[in-house]
Amino acid sequence: MSPESYSRSNRPIDYLKSSVNKIILIKVKRNRLFRGRLGGFDDHLNLYLEETSQIFEFQDDEGNIREEHENLGSIVVRGDNVIFVNLAHLEGF
Amino acid sequence: MSPESYSRSNRPIDYLKSSVNKIILIKVKRNRLFRGRLGGFDDHLNLYLEETSQIFEFQDDEGNIREEHENLGSIVVRGDNVIFVNLAHLEGF
Amino acid sequence: MSPESYSRSNRPIDYLKSSVNKIILIKVKRNRLFRGRLGGFDDHLNLYLEETSQIFEFQDDEGNIREEHENLGSIVVRGDNVIFVNLAHLEGF
Amino acid sequence: MSPESYSRSNRPIDYLKSSVNKIILIKVKRNRLFRGRLGGFDDHLNLYLEETSQIFEFQDDEGNIREEHENLGSIVVRGDNVIFVNLAHLEGF
Amino acid sequence: MSPESYSRSNRPIDYLKSSVNKIILIKVKRNRLFRGRLGGFDDHLNLYLEETSQIFEFQDDEGNIREEHENLGSIVVRGDNVIFVNLAHLEGF
Amino acid sequence: MSPESYSRSNRPIDYLKSSVNKIILIKVKRNRLFRGRLGGFDDHLNLYLEETSQIFEFQDDEGNIREEHENLGSIVVRGDNVIFVNLAHLEGF
Amino acid sequence: MSPESYSRSNRPIDYLKSSVNKIILIKVKRNRLFRGRLGGFDDHLNLYLEETSQIFEFQDDEGNIREEHENLGSIVVRGDNVIFVNLAHLEGF
Repeated sequence: MSPESYSRSNRPIDYLKSSVNKIILIKVKRNRLFRGRLGGFDDHLNLYLEETSQIFEFQDDEGNIREEHENLGSIVVRGDNVIFVNLAHLEGF
Repeated sequence: MSPESYSRSNRPIDYLKSSVNKIILIKVKRNRLFRGRLGGFDDHLNLYLEETSQIFEFQDDEGNIREEHENLGSIVVRGDNVIFVNLAHLEGF
Repeated sequence: MSPESYSRSNRPIDYLKSSVNKIILIKVKRNRLFRGRLGGFDDHLNLYLEETSQIFEFQDDEGNIREEHENLGSIVVRGDNVIFVNLAHLEGF
Repeated sequence: MSPESYSRSNRPIDYLKSSVNKIILIKVKRNRLFRGRLGGFDDHLNLYLEETSQIFEFQDDEGNIREEHENLGSIVVRGDNVIFVNLAHLEGF
Repeated sequence: MSPESYSRSNRPIDYLKSSVNKIILIKVKRNRLFRGRLGGFDDHLNLYLEETSQIFEFQDDEGNIREEHENLGSIVVRGDNVIFVNLAHLEGF
Repeated sequence: MSPESYSRSNRPIDYLKSSVNKIILIKVKRNRLFRGRLGGFDDHLNLYLEETSQIFEFQDDEGNIREEHENLGSIVVRGDNVIFVNLAHLEGF
Repeated sequence: MSPESYSRSNRPIDYLKSSVNKIILIKVKRNRLFRGRLGGFDDHLNLYLEETSQIFEFQDDEGNIREEHENLGSIVVRGDNVIFVNLAHLEGF
């Protein structure tokens, strides 16, 4: 398969299909990070996520990067906020 | 149902339908948070909300996260401000 | 009426119709707030307002939220600045 | 006339027509304010202004809001910078 | 000529035609100012300028507004950066 | 080949084709840098990357520029975040 | 040639044609500056550059403007980041 056909048949967004029903990470503008089960998506990268938790990263007093989680359940993310989607590689993640 | 058909038949925004007439949370840019009854929406994620309250989160002098509420009644939110919509799971929320 | 038909027949912006000729509040980016009589609107949420006053909120030296008003008369607001429109519920508001 | 026909026949931007050849105020992002004679406009709120002066507002050492004017002559403002247009009510303004 | 025909026949951007081959000032976002000979333009307000100099305004140690010039020759400005174009009134400017 | 035909036949984005399956660097807004194997792209510069690592640049206490890497696996980058793509020149890079 | 035909036949972006295969300077948002050989461009001002170096301008401890260069090779710049393109006038530049 040539690079030309490769890129035409497989648009970047199509690669999300293999992650439907799997856990993904979504990095969003304004330093937000979501982890959830991908329920659906569209061409604008609008995302439907289930069992979502928002992850807050912050520096503690010793300068270490720490994480806090907030459970959100099912959310619809507006695509124009997305920086990148980290596809599922392991169900355990 | 394959991932392909799944994502095509159910666009992320379609998942808002099940929350019409129910209480949802909307996270908006510039650190705004709304809670209200979803009256209607469109493809841009413009939202019509009833019984809306805006929730302000702030840190008090002891560093604790605190909330203040402002009752707004019925509002129309312009969709391009929305970061994500937290769908109704419990009417009590 | 099902959620599906509900959301299709009544787009969020259509709810502005019932507020035409009534006093509404408009929250705009960059911390601006307008109160005025809705004269007209379009799908971009461009707004025509009469008897408009701009409301400035600020903290005084004691830390209290204070308001100042500036009378503007008739204005046309470019829709992409709008965060949300607070619909008229009481003429007295 | 019903609200429905009202809003359809008179789009917000159409209200600018009555201000053509009159003095208007234009509030622009990044804290700019223009006063000028409206020579023309289009649907994007691009504006052609004659006899324009840019008004700078600043706080002096006593904390009073002060104004400075800069004469610009004829300018074309790109519409996406506009927050709102204050329509002419008095030629003297 | 009625305001209606006036605004329809003369779009704001059409007023740039009379400044082609003349010296104009362009105010651009992020506090940039260009002075140059207008060679061409399009509906997005993309501009082709010749004999361009970029003007930097800054406050010196006494608080006076000062100007520095940088000669750029011929440039193409992407229209979405433009705040306003100051049309030529005098060749000497 | 004249410049005219050159630019029409080879759009900037077409040059990414030769980098498919190769390691590229992507500079993204908000000071992010990704290195990964280009799996696919589209006209919006949405990118599918495999074996991706995000590279954080920071200044250490002596003022030296330092790098930290985070392995991300496969990601889809939303194109509107991209500043530029550094094409593969050496597989070793 | 009248201004009207002038501006219609020569769009600003068309002036880039004469710089294909020549060294140009590109000023990009977030204070970035690129120097490179223009390989191709499109209507969005997406650019393909070869032999590119990124130029960092900074103030040293004495307050002088200093430059640092980073060689990037071939890059594709997403057009919406471009402020202006400085066309080639001298091959030596």
